[in-house]
Amino acid sequence: MSEAKLRIGIAGLGTVGKQVAHAILSGTLPGVILTHVVIRDISKDRGLDLSSVSIGTDPLALADPDNGIDLIVELMGGEDGEALDLVKGALNSGKSVVTANKAMLARHAMELATLADNNKQSLGFEAAVAGGIPIIKTIREALAGNKVTRLSGILNGTCNFILSQMTDTGAAFDDVLKRAQDLGYAEADPSFDIGGIDAAQKLTLLASLAYGVKPDLSAVSLRGITEITARDISAATDFKCSIRLVALAEGAGGATSLWVGPALLRRSHPLSQINGVTNAVVISAEPVGELILQGPGAGGGATASAVLGDIADIAGGYGRPLFVHPVSDLVDAQSANQKLESAWYLRFLLADTAGSMASVTQILAKNGVSIEEAIQRAPSDGETHLPVVFITHKTDESAVQKAILEVKELSGIAADVLCLPVFAD
Amino acid sequence: MSEAKLRIGIAGLGTVGKQVAHAILSGTLPGVILTHVVIRDISKDRGLDLSSVSIGTDPLALADPDNGIDLIVELMGGEDGEALDLVKGALNSGKSVVTANKAMLARHAMELATLADNNKQSLGFEAAVAGGIPIIKTIREALAGNKVTRLSGILNGTCNFILSQMTDTGAAFDDVLKRAQDLGYAEADPSFDIGGIDAAQKLTLLASLAYGVKPDLSAVSLRGITEITARDISAATDFKCSIRLVALAEGAGGATSLWVGPALLRRSHPLSQINGVTNAVVISAEPVGELILQGPGAGGGATASAVLGDIADIAGGYGRPLFVHPVSDLVDAQSANQKLESAWYLRFLLADTAGSMASVTQILAKNGVSIEEAIQRAPSDGETHLPVVFITHKTDESAVQKAILEVKELSGIAADVLCLPVFAD
Repeated sequence: MSEAKLRIGIAGLGTVGKQVAHAILSGTLPGVILTHVVIRDISKDRGLDLSSVSIGTDPLALADPDNGIDLIVELMGGEDGEALDLVKGALNSGKSVVTANKAMLARHAMELATLADNNKQSLGFEAAVAGGIPIIKTIREALAGNKVTRLSGILNGTCNFILSQMTDTGAAFDDVLKRAQDLGYAEADPSFDIGGIDAAQKLTLLASLAYGVKPDLSAVSLRGITEITARDISAATDFKCSIRLVALAEGAGGATSLWVGPALLRRSHPLSQINGVTNAVVISAEPVGELILQGPGAGGGATASAVLGDIADIAGGYGRPLFVHPVSDLVDAQSANQKLESAWYLRFLLADTAGSMASVTQILAKNGVSIEEAIQRAPSDGETHLPVVFITHKTDESAVQKAILEVKELSGIAADVLCLPVFAD
Repeated sequence: MSEAKLRIGIAGLGTVGKQVAHAILSGTLPGVILTHVVIRDISKDRGLDLSSVSIGTDPLALADPDNGIDLIVELMGGEDGEALDLVKGALNSGKSVVTANKAMLARHAMELATLADNNKQSLGFEAAVAGGIPIIKTIREALAGNKVTRLSGILNGTCNFILSQMTDTGAAFDDVLKRAQDLGYAEADPSFDIGGIDAAQKLTLLASLAYGVKPDLSAVSLRGITEITARDISAATDFKCSIRLVALAEGAGGATSLWVGPALLRRSHPLSQINGVTNAVVISAEPVGELILQGPGAGGGATASAVLGDIADIAGGYGRPLFVHPVSDLVDAQSANQKLESAWYLRFLLADTAGSMASVTQILAKNGVSIEEAIQRAPSDGETHLPVVFITHKTDESAVQKAILEVKELSGIAADVLCLPVFAD
């Protein structure tokens, strides 16, 4: 009864922070007490009884070594600035940290892991990747006896919402993006999500745990979803595929290649039916085989759940180092320009003239790119070009890229070329 | 470098034990060393270099307090007898235990949890439920800040293999069971699996973690899959459903109801497409929402993965109590005769006489059971009865059971009645 409780300070009482605070104030976690919160606007009513809690506006005050706080929950966001100063200050003051800030971690994880180790403190970040899915815990702990061979995931709910809405409604990218923004699923400036950067940051963190490679965004071969048109979505459906933004890590240790981009997924692919803002991760590992984890990738409840799990671990004395491996053992991932070996989706608009299709297929054949499926449609009213889409047999990316370069030189014949990998499993 | 290593003794070198031993001998887990194994037949070659390991044939010798072993891995099986004596002896000698033995735990978890607590030792059992899926870790640790509202799972690979094979091939239950036995997916005496007991044991363990109820097989409303015919499978397909053995825990604390049985799952249900020996668990919880975990439910690799995860936790100083709650806080689950509120699948064979269909539908109507979908087929050659199947609107189980009793009294009219719940999510 008189055991010392873990004293928590929360920086940021937004959607997530409010739920975390509410759970702690309700006694959900034994041995944990909320003592401090830092908020921007002290006058705003958050529907919480904070009468027992010290309320401030200066995040850095939470890191004060003499304020009695044992664990800081950083929910302010931002990869640098006050969030980073707070986390570093907290670790240096001998406080543990739990954060949902993937951007900060993707950039500063090495430094923060070192700080945490040196100060013998924990830094929990389950909430930073795939929301409520316990993917950090699964890779770091449950699969400790495994060798991961492949990680493949849908890690960005905004992109997945946009792509699945485009499929369901046939609407254009811009219209669906607007809808996502109206619903709060996309930011006013959506470039971070739709450019694939958010997914890539998460992938670097997962790859660090699974493969022991340094988190490094520049090692990710990265492409966003902005080039995907309603026509591509419709063609994918015709090919019995869906288009998803996939994050992929493959290999072992320093030979790990990291890839984020839109891909066609055949129905056999475990991620092909993941819709809306749901996230999912497929882990292939030896000896376990294939695990699939699926759940809400964002939102206050999912993120709060992950934050609370981390707090409970630390409160129980089960806090872990940030990485599985000592920071000094982490190695570089492969550089970002690795080539995929895959089947490929190719989309062209071909001039409606005799021989244009023949020219393109000849170039593909000459480069050893053989066609498995093709669909050619009549042009819509007023269009002077024919939409043509192919799926190729499995081919090295270099061959496909060389063929595309040659096709693009057929000026006046082929326009609007898009090339995406096609994954079956 | 000179840090003391956790010394492991393994009882049983079957499919799982061999892989666990191999991983430890290969140095997969830092800080862990294999010092003892106990096997039945010492002369059998297991393809392992055991030259550095003490080999014995007496499991109980592993529990000797003076043999230097820190952690016993129990892979012998059997709910009582030597396995239980070994685990109790090990805990009493101050050794931690990791086991895959769900039968032993389902029966003796309360006693073993008390022993483990009293001796301040850990008892890891991730491998006992859902094979390679980290379901224990997820419920106990990742969801520590959540309140679970429903657990729904496919927890027995044998049943799932049989039911999905029946769907794929149209074959009869007995033929597919024989095939499962030939493939090693079913035991020579399959009653434990096809009777639902294995799934029920696993459910009681999950419910203990999620709801704080005592593991008690008699609290599970339990039914096996032996009544499912090829005709039911075909009817389910016509209704755009699949039939699966589902384990279900619902409620909160002592109000938790536990149910294991075959059910029709609509395509919208997250478990409806789980095929073959795969296991999956859907966890609905607040605040996280819905998590789905899927993976290999059995087999040497999957089970070894879970065992190794538990060993790694204990080696790292992260061993946990068996239950989330102190044993003295566990409460009884609801008694097994709780009624489900659900839609229902009803199968009858009706005498091919005027009025038989009218009699049955009148009885259903009189009991407030309203029909949503019905399929009546022509009898096969030589059959004197018409197969008729219904799906009802959502109704209390009591009303359906009362109607069925009345229908059964229509002797000569209705035969061969089966009633299964239909779950949509």
